[in-house]
Amino acid sequence: MSPFTGSAARTPSWEHLRVDLTDGVATVTLARPEKLNALTFGAYADLRDLLAELSRERSVRALVLAGEGRGFCSGGDVDEIIGATLSMDTAQLLDFNRMTGQVVRAIRECPFPVIAAVQGVAAGAGAVLALAADFRVADPTARFAFLFTRVGLSGGDMGAAYLLPRVVGLGHATRLLMLGDPVRAPEAERIGLISELTEEGHTDEAAQQLARRLADGPALAYAQTKALLTAELDMPLAASVELDASTQALLMTGEDYAEFHAAFTEKRPPKWSGR
Amino acid sequence: MSPFTGSAARTPSWEHLRVDLTDGVATVTLARPEKLNALTFGAYADLRDLLAELSRERSVRALVLAGEGRGFCSGGDVDEIIGATLSMDTAQLLDFNRMTGQVVRAIRECPFPVIAAVQGVAAGAGAVLALAADFRVADPTARFAFLFTRVGLSGGDMGAAYLLPRVVGLGHATRLLMLGDPVRAPEAERIGLISELTEEGHTDEAAQQLARRLADGPALAYAQTKALLTAELDMPLAASVELDASTQALLMTGEDYAEFHAAFTEKRPPKWSGR
Amino acid sequence: MSPFTGSAARTPSWEHLRVDLTDGVATVTLARPEKLNALTFGAYADLRDLLAELSRERSVRALVLAGEGRGFCSGGDVDEIIGATLSMDTAQLLDFNRMTGQVVRAIRECPFPVIAAVQGVAAGAGAVLALAADFRVADPTARFAFLFTRVGLSGGDMGAAYLLPRVVGLGHATRLLMLGDPVRAPEAERIGLISELTEEGHTDEAAQQLARRLADGPALAYAQTKALLTAELDMPLAASVELDASTQALLMTGEDYAEFHAAFTEKRPPKWSGR
Repeated sequence: MSPFTGSAARTPSWEHLRVDLTDGVATVTLARPEKLNALTFGAYADLRDLLAELSRERSVRALVLAGEGRGFCSGGDVDEIIGATLSMDTAQLLDFNRMTGQVVRAIRECPFPVIAAVQGVAAGAGAVLALAADFRVADPTARFAFLFTRVGLSGGDMGAAYLLPRVVGLGHATRLLMLGDPVRAPEAERIGLISELTEEGHTDEAAQQLARRLADGPALAYAQTKALLTAELDMPLAASVELDASTQALLMTGEDYAEFHAAFTEKRPPKWSGR
Repeated sequence: MSPFTGSAARTPSWEHLRVDLTDGVATVTLARPEKLNALTFGAYADLRDLLAELSRERSVRALVLAGEGRGFCSGGDVDEIIGATLSMDTAQLLDFNRMTGQVVRAIRECPFPVIAAVQGVAAGAGAVLALAADFRVADPTARFAFLFTRVGLSGGDMGAAYLLPRVVGLGHATRLLMLGDPVRAPEAERIGLISELTEEGHTDEAAQQLARRLADGPALAYAQTKALLTAELDMPLAASVELDASTQALLMTGEDYAEFHAAFTEKRPPKWSGR
Repeated sequence: MSPFTGSAARTPSWEHLRVDLTDGVATVTLARPEKLNALTFGAYADLRDLLAELSRERSVRALVLAGEGRGFCSGGDVDEIIGATLSMDTAQLLDFNRMTGQVVRAIRECPFPVIAAVQGVAAGAGAVLALAADFRVADPTARFAFLFTRVGLSGGDMGAAYLLPRVVGLGHATRLLMLGDPVRAPEAERIGLISELTEEGHTDEAAQQLARRLADGPALAYAQTKALLTAELDMPLAASVELDASTQALLMTGEDYAEFHAAFTEKRPPKWSGR
């Protein structure tokens, strides 16, 4: 837990997400399986606020983002969201689209790795949530569809036109964002969109195993690795090398680095404190 | 058509390219098959001017760039271009090399998707024209060769050292640009340089089908997707997310987004206006 | 040789590396096979200084970085380096980490292509040295492990969090840097981390062949291709196209470009001078 807390109270309950926190692993589940976990205004807002709260408290060392049932997330709900936005004014439209973008920024900028557990459909905003995660653990039923143009919108939604070329290259990204065609698991794995392919029905289990490994390991080292990956996409080489040097000098004063050396010398596994 | 036209007249005829415009699809054909469509000074200048004219008029919703005969484009003509540049002065050399780069910028920045239909050789400047396109539709005879170093020049020609690492990654890009070795269709597909692999001899047909789909679809959504992909390669995450938010808010006031919702509600296919 | 030399003397002998210079090809060998060529403070410093010296003198047209024995390089020596850093003060830690980053910058910024010949282990700093090279010639025994988090440090070491996403994409890079798991040759080839896969035991031979081809070829064209690839990772499209134009205009006044045209006209192979 961070020693730097102020007046802000923890949210007593998350109405639009299922949230579990166990030994440093947060599991956030989109839980509207009858709607393939379609996102509502409330779910976006809860994701934004939950990630901010968890980032501030530092109680989490790894986060799993999962979807209940046979799909991960079918994107923004056609009835609740598309219908409602049609009668919004300019300021409201901007507020909504900024909120969804804030969720993606929060996933990229939170100080712990995020693992998306993807079975079945990851469509629209659901595909971007998975894309923004550090790891995509998926099974053979997974299919990603950046189908924004299918509803008359730009494929560059929630940072997708920034992130996707950096994950799969500009050629594949153009095809996926422009056409909105579904990408099934074999192609997704081939182009680098899947981090770990599991057997069918094992995405939650594999995501939890990875989260446990991360939470029990040198968590500060993982957090800094994520922070540097995120930052250095936007930095030139010389500045990146300098950032790496100061980060590494800092971590060399940390507990886990000393523990590694002691364990190595004593020929035993290290006991990571995450500090 | 754009309502914002001024005094500039349309070019009455394109001497160095074959240009067809049908129902929003422009087809631009390099038509010197006896020379494998080698580029001349006139062809570069026509490509630059044609793309500027089409971008200004907004009469085009998708563009196919094709080569007549068994090759796509063998690059700058050895006799006409390499020979001529040997007696150019400094200012002329810069003018020529800026012109070729302007063609690439025009392909990346025009407000409609560009589809390269690649059969046979795409070499030198021909490989970069294909690389700059949004889609590369190719058949098994396609081979890409960035052979600039083979003539004693830098592999970074016309933006290739910017674009290729962003399409296939820095490792492959270094190999391709440094050595100039040909990349045949199977490898090109594996590394992400081909968007759609067709059967032999079907590149023109497949490129036209894709162009028709794009021109008949939500064209403004496609145009904005392309614009964001191009812009966000050069933007940091936070700014990209903000650009996405304002773009999406704008498109949510457009005709096609409302039409999607109406069609969805009425359980019918949408009739896209491209606005 | 560069005409611009000053008072600085050549280093008479390199104590921590084996260095050979033959007809424009430098071969730098990490030669502590009993330790899998683990790096020492002296080896890092020698790499930094050697690359600076060779860059200044312009006597080298291609450089092979090799490891003696069954591995390429196992990274920083656990005893000499990790042990020693534990008792360093803040300034010393920063000095050390800046030095290692300077080696990577020198590999990326030196005016000749660098070829890593990788058999067996390329771990930690060894993996980053290979990553920074322009070409990775590897055999089936090669395995890359960015195992910084395994010792409690950030995966972003020596520019790895900048370089790896640009070589293999953000998804694979996150997995490799965060977890530190080894990547064996087949996967490394599939994701673009290997430039040329050789038969087992032939990495040195293949690296020398490639270096010879580069040194005997249009060396200035190769050097500029490398410089543009390095620079344009950090540049926007419009500026990159302008840099390409002025570079190409310059090389069009060079000897090798004229020689290509003469050779083509006379139907003979070009005799490259590298100028």
